[in-house]
Amino acid sequence: MDLLSATAAIETAQGATSPNLLLGIIFGCSIFGLLFAGWLVSWVLKKDTGTEKMREISDAIKDGAEAFLARQNKTILVLAAVLGVVIFVLYGFVRAHHEFDPTSTALQLAFWTTFSFGLGALCSVVAGYVGMWVSIRTNIRVASAARNSLNAALQVALRGGAVSGMLVVALSLLGVAGLFAVIEAFAAPAAVEHIPLMIVGYGFGASFVALFAQLGGGIYTKAADVGADLVGKVEAGIPEDDPRNPAVIADLVGDNVGDCAGRGADLFESTAAENIGAMVLGASLAHTADINHLGFAAGVVGVMLFPLVARAFGILASAIGVLFVKMKSETEDPMHALNRGYYLTAVLAIIGFAFATWWLLASPNNPDAWWKYFICGMIGVVNSIAFVFITQYYTEYKYRPVQFIAEQSKTGPATNIIAGISVGFECTLASVIAISIAIISSYMIGLWAFPTPAGMSWTAGGGLFGTGVATMGMLATCGYILAMDNFGPITDNAGGIVEMSEQPEEIRKRTDRLDAVGNTTKALTKGYAIGSAALAAFLLFSAYLDEVKNFGTALTSVNISEPKIFVAGLLGGTLVFYFTSLAIKAVGKSAYAVIEAVRKQFREHPGILKGTEKPNYRECVDLVTKSALREMVKPGLWAVCMPIAVGLVFKQFGVGAEAVAGFLIVGTITGVLMATFLNNAGGAWDNAKKYIESGLFKVNGVVMGKRSDPHKAAVVGDTVGDPFKDTAGPSLHVLIKLLATVTLVLAPLFI
Amino acid sequence: MDLLSATAAIETAQGATSPNLLLGIIFGCSIFGLLFAGWLVSWVLKKDTGTEKMREISDAIKDGAEAFLARQNKTILVLAAVLGVVIFVLYGFVRAHHEFDPTSTALQLAFWTTFSFGLGALCSVVAGYVGMWVSIRTNIRVASAARNSLNAALQVALRGGAVSGMLVVALSLLGVAGLFAVIEAFAAPAAVEHIPLMIVGYGFGASFVALFAQLGGGIYTKAADVGADLVGKVEAGIPEDDPRNPAVIADLVGDNVGDCAGRGADLFESTAAENIGAMVLGASLAHTADINHLGFAAGVVGVMLFPLVARAFGILASAIGVLFVKMKSETEDPMHALNRGYYLTAVLAIIGFAFATWWLLASPNNPDAWWKYFICGMIGVVNSIAFVFITQYYTEYKYRPVQFIAEQSKTGPATNIIAGISVGFECTLASVIAISIAIISSYMIGLWAFPTPAGMSWTAGGGLFGTGVATMGMLATCGYILAMDNFGPITDNAGGIVEMSEQPEEIRKRTDRLDAVGNTTKALTKGYAIGSAALAAFLLFSAYLDEVKNFGTALTSVNISEPKIFVAGLLGGTLVFYFTSLAIKAVGKSAYAVIEAVRKQFREHPGILKGTEKPNYRECVDLVTKSALREMVKPGLWAVCMPIAVGLVFKQFGVGAEAVAGFLIVGTITGVLMATFLNNAGGAWDNAKKYIESGLFKVNGVVMGKRSDPHKAAVVGDTVGDPFKDTAGPSLHVLIKLLATVTLVLAPLFI
Repeated sequence: MDLLSATAAIETAQGATSPNLLLGIIFGCSIFGLLFAGWLVSWVLKKDTGTEKMREISDAIKDGAEAFLARQNKTILVLAAVLGVVIFVLYGFVRAHHEFDPTSTALQLAFWTTFSFGLGALCSVVAGYVGMWVSIRTNIRVASAARNSLNAALQVALRGGAVSGMLVVALSLLGVAGLFAVIEAFAAPAAVEHIPLMIVGYGFGASFVALFAQLGGGIYTKAADVGADLVGKVEAGIPEDDPRNPAVIADLVGDNVGDCAGRGADLFESTAAENIGAMVLGASLAHTADINHLGFAAGVVGVMLFPLVARAFGILASAIGVLFVKMKSETEDPMHALNRGYYLTAVLAIIGFAFATWWLLASPNNPDAWWKYFICGMIGVVNSIAFVFITQYYTEYKYRPVQFIAEQSKTGPATNIIAGISVGFECTLASVIAISIAIISSYMIGLWAFPTPAGMSWTAGGGLFGTGVATMGMLATCGYILAMDNFGPITDNAGGIVEMSEQPEEIRKRTDRLDAVGNTTKALTKGYAIGSAALAAFLLFSAYLDEVKNFGTALTSVNISEPKIFVAGLLGGTLVFYFTSLAIKAVGKSAYAVIEAVRKQFREHPGILKGTEKPNYRECVDLVTKSALREMVKPGLWAVCMPIAVGLVFKQFGVGAEAVAGFLIVGTITGVLMATFLNNAGGAWDNAKKYIESGLFKVNGVVMGKRSDPHKAAVVGDTVGDPFKDTAGPSLHVLIKLLATVTLVLAPLFI
Repeated sequence: MDLLSATAAIETAQGATSPNLLLGIIFGCSIFGLLFAGWLVSWVLKKDTGTEKMREISDAIKDGAEAFLARQNKTILVLAAVLGVVIFVLYGFVRAHHEFDPTSTALQLAFWTTFSFGLGALCSVVAGYVGMWVSIRTNIRVASAARNSLNAALQVALRGGAVSGMLVVALSLLGVAGLFAVIEAFAAPAAVEHIPLMIVGYGFGASFVALFAQLGGGIYTKAADVGADLVGKVEAGIPEDDPRNPAVIADLVGDNVGDCAGRGADLFESTAAENIGAMVLGASLAHTADINHLGFAAGVVGVMLFPLVARAFGILASAIGVLFVKMKSETEDPMHALNRGYYLTAVLAIIGFAFATWWLLASPNNPDAWWKYFICGMIGVVNSIAFVFITQYYTEYKYRPVQFIAEQSKTGPATNIIAGISVGFECTLASVIAISIAIISSYMIGLWAFPTPAGMSWTAGGGLFGTGVATMGMLATCGYILAMDNFGPITDNAGGIVEMSEQPEEIRKRTDRLDAVGNTTKALTKGYAIGSAALAAFLLFSAYLDEVKNFGTALTSVNISEPKIFVAGLLGGTLVFYFTSLAIKAVGKSAYAVIEAVRKQFREHPGILKGTEKPNYRECVDLVTKSALREMVKPGLWAVCMPIAVGLVFKQFGVGAEAVAGFLIVGTITGVLMATFLNNAGGAWDNAKKYIESGLFKVNGVVMGKRSDPHKAAVVGDTVGDPFKDTAGPSLHVLIKLLATVTLVLAPLFI
């Protein structure tokens, strides 16, 4: 092929804009993702399930987890159904139809919004359920594989975890793209860029389910953990995961329902909401570009579907990365193998991303636009790396902050707590600087790619879409990250099974090594999740501003210096504090119930501690299930209802949409800060304890290890940090995005 | 006098607008306040100073406190001098003169701003110093008076505390009014309403000193307290205030330098900054009113000086209230006597406030304006009462939250900490609802009094001034509140002196009762301080927006949805988290030094614990002094430099003034939430411990008192709460206002 015809081919490729081709790619990659997940499931299930004793424990975990999830899903679906009816009534009957609405009647808009909401909720439930279904079947196979080799165990754990990762990304793409195709075919809106407005409900449904899943699971896992630790380790003086502890199965169940199911739902809603948000911004930008004769070769649809296409390539990259993971030898650090897989995924995802920008963001009259947006995407990648490093610095015991906490444990639990809280507050600075640089630079580069047209509002330029592309860049490797994240609870459970079934020392050592790696991956992915939540939240409220415009009110300014908007902002910040309070208190209350129950069993059946009587595991499991489900409702309803209440109250003052925006923005800022604080303080406390346990911590040359006074103080800090890092923090990730989706969906009601 | 001539007299009174008369009233009341404070000092000093042993202890406290304050003031004044030079250079040589400047040359503006700054800093130092000078001489007299009667001790403590209260209010009025008079006479600015722009430096100087005084004092007091408790009570098992503890004198010194000197400087800067902010808003409103032929009878000067006149009447009211306090009998609750004094002060202050609004805010063409503004003032009063109730609910052990913390102490320190943190986060909701109602209602009523003229920006209406008047209403009883606040550390010290000089049981009981009342008044006044800080911060950034206008940029909108402003806001919230981290960590570090030093003394001089050897008190005092002064510098400089850095960096993007406003507003919101959390969590932990100590806390019918396991857990919570409620929380009150004053003063540089 000579140069001329190559150029011509490139130009043809850049101009190929058929929505069917794009949808075909998205569907193709998503279905591939689902098939790959199915293959992973069958691969994992074929593995050996170990000894009878192992199966007994694993079955107990499985029963408990499935019972909890079934009941939780029932509760969530009832709540979602009620909310679905409310949305339908509000859109169909309360709110009058306006000529600028994306549909021709109010009932149509009501139908599509409610339908999207229901589908989003359902997909989220499915993603969480299947992820957990696999994970509770993987744990025993990891335990069994550990009897052969570390590499085998590592591969089983990662591939089991990857099921949920593939599923989440694929389902969210299928849902959004499917709704797009269905609405385009059946509802035939006046303009294709109105479609995202009709499917925002999908993101809201996903967030709604995710909030309750993360709250319920987070409360469950930490109530069981704190309860089991306090009454077992501290009071009865028996080791962790000891089969004599009646709460030990509840604790292992918790890892699955909290970390697997909860995080799965969380990342599902992230990707769904962010896809839609980026579509809204992309549609808006492409529309403006067309008006100004700087249109994109791929047209409005091409830009709008760009985020989905980029994510679809990410599925392929993640699948290859997962298959690639293999330890070079039995003595290699397993983390190195996981890192190699990640690097491969990242490189492939970047190549896919570059191709998608070159193809879909090409503009004949603005030939540099595509690579500028590619840079925006890379800013997202760099931001995710920065977050991983910051998280490591503040939570690993190689570095000063965790060592400082250990040092302060010498003078007791009070100084340990004070030190941990100060480290948590401190780490917000570095995190915020990273986010700030990412937002401003991607915004400026986006504007550089596509300056604000003369005489138009600042929102019409390409800056906001630049921040959206950065978010997409950050999320490109999401599938692999989620696989690493699920790796944590699976190996944790495998360790528990090995411990409880009293396997030889050698095998325990293998699962302990995997468990340690799992703790690292969990901490890293938490840093990734909050970093992407911050960037995504900015994307989402930009989408909100843009959406409001489509409903006839150009909201180009949210004037926080105006008293009413200031008060709305103040209330947004307050929701974060209040929600955190409720989430933390829920753990305290549920843990307290566990402690009382275990004490009762020890008192009434003295044989349990002697090892002659079997404890009643099921009682603890039931108790935590009931308590967690009861306690998750209040914080969840506050999160959903407060933005709605603010919108409706301030509508009476004539500033409903703007007040909600102020509420959302300050809520986001406070939420990002609070979640960063909670996650890192919790992680740092955890590792300060581990640092002391490792035997590296010395006072005047004497090793202060397990059961020393500093260790006891560090255990208190670790326990305080549990609800911080595993309940309130992750729930805040969801809250931040839920605030955005609830306002996106209900925006028309506030105007 | 018949009706007609009465009406005529009223009209004459309402129209009397000579600035000299107003300044005369302000100066007259202020000088009366100073004379009254002098009389109180001589009254207190005439009292008996007790036994030789008492004097010995009191002298040790006095020496320690004076040595600390002398060194602290030296450090602060050096920092202030450097900053003063920087301000002078920036204004005089870096920034170009503009025609809209309030002076005719750049050097003049530089001179007046720097002069105001220096005067504010100096007055703040004097107010803090004299307040503490009196308080360390009052404590022993209270201890001695307690040998005669409870009433005598109560009166001495309150009158000693009132010295600082009177001084703070009077000095801040004298400073602001004095600068006003001097600038009017010598600088002769083009328009009288430009004067406040030239004296904003006074507020900044006061805030600057207050920040360091509160930080240094707060670190000192809690480092000594935490250190003394951990090593004395927990490790050596000796009671609080035991003379064998080498850190006990440092602990008693801490009460003075933290609570008396720190709080004095804090409230001094509050009143100064708020007076100036209200003057800025008043001048602006009066100017607009004149243009629209709705001018005030008292003219621009009358409205501008209204805040000062209202406060001047508050001095008289507070003086009468203080004199009125007397117990009806020896068995009466001393709190009742203090409350009676407060009610009298409040009624008198309201009458004075009503007169001031009727006189100075009368408008012939808008005859209802004055009483509408009077309602705004009452909203401020009601808000302060609401805050006192909310604080009581969350921090007194009569109510659910503190009992919940005690309940959770049954399962150890970890659950106690989790419970306390959740209570602290929870209380932000009620507090914010109170502030929100106060801001919106006073704004709406202010607008009702004076609607936004057609075609003008929303800031031109009377709404913002309404929120300013509400702040003035809240602060009307400030003198008396401060007297109650100082009552706390004085009685605390008196109790310590009685304890250490081994007085009979009966006398200890008296000082214990006073001490308990002192704890209540301290908690209440802290609620009052944060409530007024929130309202005042709103006032101050409204003043900032208004001021920016005078420098040629109409900043009527702070668009937080714009990425750059969003990032600035995010950074504002981050400063609050980071500052809190530094403040808390400083206490941890300094306390750690104290613990090490005490352990060393115990180890090297075993006679100390046996009571045969005298501990080296001075060593501990010196150590805490050095450590506190070293540790206060970093958080203080961050607080001052970060808003400046944000302004200068974002100026490069062309949005300096708006970015600083976003930084300021989100910083304020986060600061109010964080301070409320810190204060109330700390207070609740403290009282959960006291609740258990009181013997009212039972588990299964068995009293769990001192030295029980729940009590040990509650002691950990109390210790964690110490730096929250006495270092970071109060420092944040100052930070919130410092952010406003630093931006007010440096606004011209960001444009």
